[in-house]
Amino acid sequence: MGSSEKTFRIGLVAPGGRMAESVAAQAKAVARKTYGDKVELKFHPQCFLSSGHFAGDDRQRTQALVEIGNDREIDAVWFARGGYGACRVAEEAIPQLGDAARRKAWLGYSDAGFLLAGLFKAGFKHVAHGPMPVDLVREDEGAAMKRGLAWLVDRDPRALEEGLGGKPSLAFNLTILSQLLGTPLEPDLSGRVLLLEDVGEYMYRIDRYFFHVTSNPNVRRCAGIRLGRCSAVPKNDPDFGMDEEEVARFWCERSGIPYLGRADIGHDSDNKVVPFG
Amino acid sequence: MGSSEKTFRIGLVAPGGRMAESVAAQAKAVARKTYGDKVELKFHPQCFLSSGHFAGDDRQRTQALVEIGNDREIDAVWFARGGYGACRVAEEAIPQLGDAARRKAWLGYSDAGFLLAGLFKAGFKHVAHGPMPVDLVREDEGAAMKRGLAWLVDRDPRALEEGLGGKPSLAFNLTILSQLLGTPLEPDLSGRVLLLEDVGEYMYRIDRYFFHVTSNPNVRRCAGIRLGRCSAVPKNDPDFGMDEEEVARFWCERSGIPYLGRADIGHDSDNKVVPFG
Repeated sequence: MGSSEKTFRIGLVAPGGRMAESVAAQAKAVARKTYGDKVELKFHPQCFLSSGHFAGDDRQRTQALVEIGNDREIDAVWFARGGYGACRVAEEAIPQLGDAARRKAWLGYSDAGFLLAGLFKAGFKHVAHGPMPVDLVREDEGAAMKRGLAWLVDRDPRALEEGLGGKPSLAFNLTILSQLLGTPLEPDLSGRVLLLEDVGEYMYRIDRYFFHVTSNPNVRRCAGIRLGRCSAVPKNDPDFGMDEEEVARFWCERSGIPYLGRADIGHDSDNKVVPFG
Repeated sequence: MGSSEKTFRIGLVAPGGRMAESVAAQAKAVARKTYGDKVELKFHPQCFLSSGHFAGDDRQRTQALVEIGNDREIDAVWFARGGYGACRVAEEAIPQLGDAARRKAWLGYSDAGFLLAGLFKAGFKHVAHGPMPVDLVREDEGAAMKRGLAWLVDRDPRALEEGLGGKPSLAFNLTILSQLLGTPLEPDLSGRVLLLEDVGEYMYRIDRYFFHVTSNPNVRRCAGIRLGRCSAVPKNDPDFGMDEEEVARFWCERSGIPYLGRADIGHDSDNKVVPFG
């Protein structure tokens, strides 16, 4: 094995949107500065492909995901970024993933939630919702990205969302959860705490997603909902009349789901890691 | 009965957004000019209330809907407009509707689709997707609104979507259908042709809605999908790479649902009536 024993190799794929090569280079620099030779980021070339909206066509994104997932030289899979497109590859890719893929950690959020859900449903044990390399665009000196790295490399407990308290939890972008309910990617939510965040959605849409999600029989069996941050909410005209926490409380009360307060997740630098369990 | 025998009374409620009084006045003028004393539009005062995003709070919108629905002096219920909010009142209102409500025709589209779905699921026989008075804002000399009226008053066959061919059909806004799947408002879609339209959604969202909708087991039992117009689609950056018909064909093929071509419905003046069956 030699020096490969010392290097923790993280494979990166982009199941949705294309990754800018400049951000990938920046991510490698951050990893090198933080971990030296101990950690290597291996961006699959697929990350930089372009096919309309996506980082390569469905087949290319599927193949890259399966290749990185099954590669025995790679210790963890990190989704480079979200965007949109994971729902187009998840059902094809997941059944092709073998034991090596099951032993790896899988980390990402936003659109990658389609894959996190499907992997968790398929019995993968090391799936987590948390920061991605693309978070470097937040110009936060790599705070979010380093948190993701710290969890992937060392399972650093400081990276974790503080309120998890050992309770089985799942975290999703609210929109993505809504869009995977009723599909083959929908995991069993019974008895699990659900942490939900969103970005760039009008309040009326947040309200509509909460109607949809809290009306679902599977969601109604969850142990409760915690609300992450809803950021970059466009101005509602007229004013919606409720903020996101009032909306979450309203729908939880109406559907009989315990509302368990706020969660420290969101499309921002403070986004913490939530391992699925 | 006297003169009331001659007058067809249409009750109007606004289960989502507020109706402008000026548009209501315009709608009355159009009805009077077209039908004289034969038709009367009765806007419930609830249409003009304002509570944040909505035309009155949930209780006010629910009560107005139930009142107009159960009123034996009223022959049909017309949703004055969409917006957002029908999903907040449907489950509370529908069980309160009695025999008089079941005998009436119910017409609307867009956000009102939540109610159309719930009413159809509850066994209402005269539910239809089609133009509303708010369509007067299209400045089409009332073409869309008059089509809705012609169906409500005379069941004018010229108001109907031309391709229905006697096949049991349902029509929805794609977003609204996505957001009611898995909720108590979801009707049985087995063997029915599904006509879908949308407005103001990015192509990547239309694609995501199609993933969600065509992955649903109930939708997969439908007789096929026909695509209405997707209008006011914001520019996708980068270009999505597929238009809405390619997207519809893609997901229909992938999910084994027959794609049955285009449908003459949409958020526009040409929007035709689709009775639910």
